[in-house]
Amino acid sequence: MRTLAEVGEKAAIDTILRRLDSSVVVGPGDDAAAIRVRKKLIVASTDIVSRVSHLPEVMTPKDIGWFVSAINFSDIAAMGARPLGILLSFCLPGNYLLNDLENIMEGAQECALSIGTEILGGDTKEGTDLVIAGSALGEVDEENILLRQGAKHGDLLAVTGTIGLASAGYVAAMNGYDSPEAINALIRPIPRIREGIALSASGAVTSAIDITDGLAYSIHELSNKSGVHFKINWDDIPIRSEVSSIAVDMKTSLDDMVLYYGGDYELLFTIRPHMVNRLRTVLRDRFSIIGQAEGHENVLMRGEEVLHLESRGYEHFKR
Amino acid sequence: MRTLAEVGEKAAIDTILRRLDSSVVVGPGDDAAAIRVRKKLIVASTDIVSRVSHLPEVMTPKDIGWFVSAINFSDIAAMGARPLGILLSFCLPGNYLLNDLENIMEGAQECALSIGTEILGGDTKEGTDLVIAGSALGEVDEENILLRQGAKHGDLLAVTGTIGLASAGYVAAMNGYDSPEAINALIRPIPRIREGIALSASGAVTSAIDITDGLAYSIHELSNKSGVHFKINWDDIPIRSEVSSIAVDMKTSLDDMVLYYGGDYELLFTIRPHMVNRLRTVLRDRFSIIGQAEGHENVLMRGEEVLHLESRGYEHFKR
Repeated sequence: MRTLAEVGEKAAIDTILRRLDSSVVVGPGDDAAAIRVRKKLIVASTDIVSRVSHLPEVMTPKDIGWFVSAINFSDIAAMGARPLGILLSFCLPGNYLLNDLENIMEGAQECALSIGTEILGGDTKEGTDLVIAGSALGEVDEENILLRQGAKHGDLLAVTGTIGLASAGYVAAMNGYDSPEAINALIRPIPRIREGIALSASGAVTSAIDITDGLAYSIHELSNKSGVHFKINWDDIPIRSEVSSIAVDMKTSLDDMVLYYGGDYELLFTIRPHMVNRLRTVLRDRFSIIGQAEGHENVLMRGEEVLHLESRGYEHFKR
Repeated sequence: MRTLAEVGEKAAIDTILRRLDSSVVVGPGDDAAAIRVRKKLIVASTDIVSRVSHLPEVMTPKDIGWFVSAINFSDIAAMGARPLGILLSFCLPGNYLLNDLENIMEGAQECALSIGTEILGGDTKEGTDLVIAGSALGEVDEENILLRQGAKHGDLLAVTGTIGLASAGYVAAMNGYDSPEAINALIRPIPRIREGIALSASGAVTSAIDITDGLAYSIHELSNKSGVHFKINWDDIPIRSEVSSIAVDMKTSLDDMVLYYGGDYELLFTIRPHMVNRLRTVLRDRFSIIGQAEGHENVLMRGEEVLHLESRGYEHFKR
């Protein structure tokens, strides 16, 4: 009998996935499930957080609310869907303050409103520690849905926003380092809904995922699901100077923060090469091309060096 | 600053509800939320359980899986909707056995399959104690949706199945009393999906709710949402002999088990009086008429006595 600490989060999720049928259009294993309703697809996804696993002390109840909303909607964004709302359910200890619960809801609603949607319902029960589960719903035309599979040899690999700022925020928060910008990126991630819808509508995008558990892990996930491999150019990965500064000041590996930590909730996606300009007219400079689908393994080009890209990333339960 | 133990679950849920907008067709406060998609409505609901609040020791992991699925689908049934699937997310301690998680999934899937639907996806994170959140989805034609509001003066009040067996099972389980039938009702509730769809399709039903927190509480809920009051006939409430036996043997109040405990997950609904026969042709003896919408308060008729029906029911957090 193995414990979760022995096998890790991925094996636990695999255990769940193996149980699942697939009469739905997109079943488990992608960012969200999709169910056909007339010609539109409804997409639905769930993410759960607990005080012990996810929520650093630096987060206020309002931050926690925003965070839970944001990470759930991030999955909807990764499907290229328009958000329809979110369900939130809570386990709370009996001595939890009602005022703190109100603030969590306020933060969650703030995030939902920021992307033009709302909270649909919820539930509360008593538990030993704070746990919040969200389930976000979205809708998308069937021909426009973005999946983790679909990348073709030759496609360009791109990301929205910049990479590593949330990791830098984590390092800063853990060490009492003053960097409001980085800490804000950690505790207030932006679900890339507008970008996801634009990617989906462009017809230029062949696969997509949100970067939850680190850039390297997400690249391997697109690679596995699509059956292609990627060559990444380190110099093309968009990294803010704040990230490099924190790496130096905190004596932390910049590579690790950019490649193997998570929390950025940006979108990673592949583009048909001849359609990059069409995407550029819509998203302007809100994305960066960091590599291309080619070769037989996932590699990182760094100057003259060709490095193997490890598939590790942040994983719960594993010690 | 008030704690949840001071204000109780209902106030906690109110806190959540007050935050919510209502651009959706059915927003928070009913059994599930509904969102318009073309002409069909998608309904979505969430229920969370924790080891400490919900799951008696007598439940195996497979039972727990069934239970979580069932209570989530029960809300879909109460809307008169066809189930589209369920999302499950877990917080689990690191020393939780993978095999137990597999069994939870197996039980959850068994319940979903029993009503012709499936598990859509999930998430796992580490926590201090077992917490499981479900989010069930369903679809229903807009004109057929069943809400807690809509009961009119003169409508008949009815329930599916029988009342009190789950409460009797709880009393039995807590006291080591041998009653597999009652304990099974407690830990393996049946979501009344087929009944809900039949009620919805009949056009005879004006309001509906599932009986989660006790019959009396659910009657008051229909009363409040619909703006009518009910006269209930004690002798018409369908109660199995097993429930009476357990009440006698365990020296527990039968009234409390039938009226004020919860866990039956039957449907409580109102019927246009002239359409009862239409419903009878579809559901045969699978429902019982227990009262009627009339008068100015919710009362229980017991022989010659007219008793006030208290609005109390099972409530989390409250001590």
